[in-house]
Amino acid sequence: MEEWFRILHPKVVTLITSVDKEGRINAAPFSWVTPVCDDPPVVLVGAWYESHTFQNISETGEFVINIVPREYKEKVEICARRFKKGENELEKAGLSWSPAKKVKPPRVDGCLGWLECRAFRIEKEEEKYSFILADVLLFEKGKEGEVLLHFGGKDYGAILQALGR
Amino acid sequence: MEEWFRILHPKVVTLITSVDKEGRINAAPFSWVTPVCDDPPVVLVGAWYESHTFQNISETGEFVINIVPREYKEKVEICARRFKKGENELEKAGLSWSPAKKVKPPRVDGCLGWLECRAFRIEKEEEKYSFILADVLLFEKGKEGEVLLHFGGKDYGAILQALGR
Repeated sequence: MEEWFRILHPKVVTLITSVDKEGRINAAPFSWVTPVCDDPPVVLVGAWYESHTFQNISETGEFVINIVPREYKEKVEICARRFKKGENELEKAGLSWSPAKKVKPPRVDGCLGWLECRAFRIEKEEEKYSFILADVLLFEKGKEGEVLLHFGGKDYGAILQALGR
Repeated sequence: MEEWFRILHPKVVTLITSVDKEGRINAAPFSWVTPVCDDPPVVLVGAWYESHTFQNISETGEFVINIVPREYKEKVEICARRFKKGENELEKAGLSWSPAKKVKPPRVDGCLGWLECRAFRIEKEEEKYSFILADVLLFEKGKEGEVLLHFGGKDYGAILQALGR
């Protein structure tokens, strides 16, 4: 069954920003993200329960889904590396950020769009799955550009490609 | 918030086959499909609770995710139309099918791959969301080819495009 999930790719790469209880910023790439209702807007994020993102959202409930442009490929790869909890991947990657409008975690500057989200269900079954269901409080479009796609595989960086739209 | 969800597209188009209690075949396109765990293989399908697919899986628990090739675009568009419950969209679309190996719903012939699935959680909150969580019992690759992508929007047919991989 190795890499069975690649058949469901390519998927849009998002950078999810969250904060912990102390307000420290985290950013990590996710592509197992899907709408589950268009109106009201509800989104589901498949985030492993040991990830800082899952832990932060469990603590604070809020996050931003940042849709990154193709030119952020190398920066996304840096955010995909393992850093200690509390370290700000955006700083490491040389990305700047601005306050969101409805939630505490910041928006990443220069993105194609942002979904500001508040989790209303956080589920995990250990060793099997975990996910976050969230209301989309605000959607805003950013600049026009090409989206980054993830073609599956464990090495995040190696399989990112851009697609015009 | 109109069409906010398009920012999370493109997404791979799948044709999900299911059967009702009488064994009558249903097939419908879905793109709000994502892995939520690679090992063990778990998949999540955002399927509206009024769809025949959701109803059939609620009755029988089994389904096949068929990854369709680009040349099935017009056939997928036919499957996206509203038919009466019990009508076989594969027949209407001129698609042929073969028995699956682990589940009752059939596989669509000529696909790029198949995921044979058994639901273990079926959730709905009326007027808000519904989804199916399933174990992937079997994954098999089909022929090589280009995958069909959904670029969002309510008119399924108009926004399908193919992408080489």
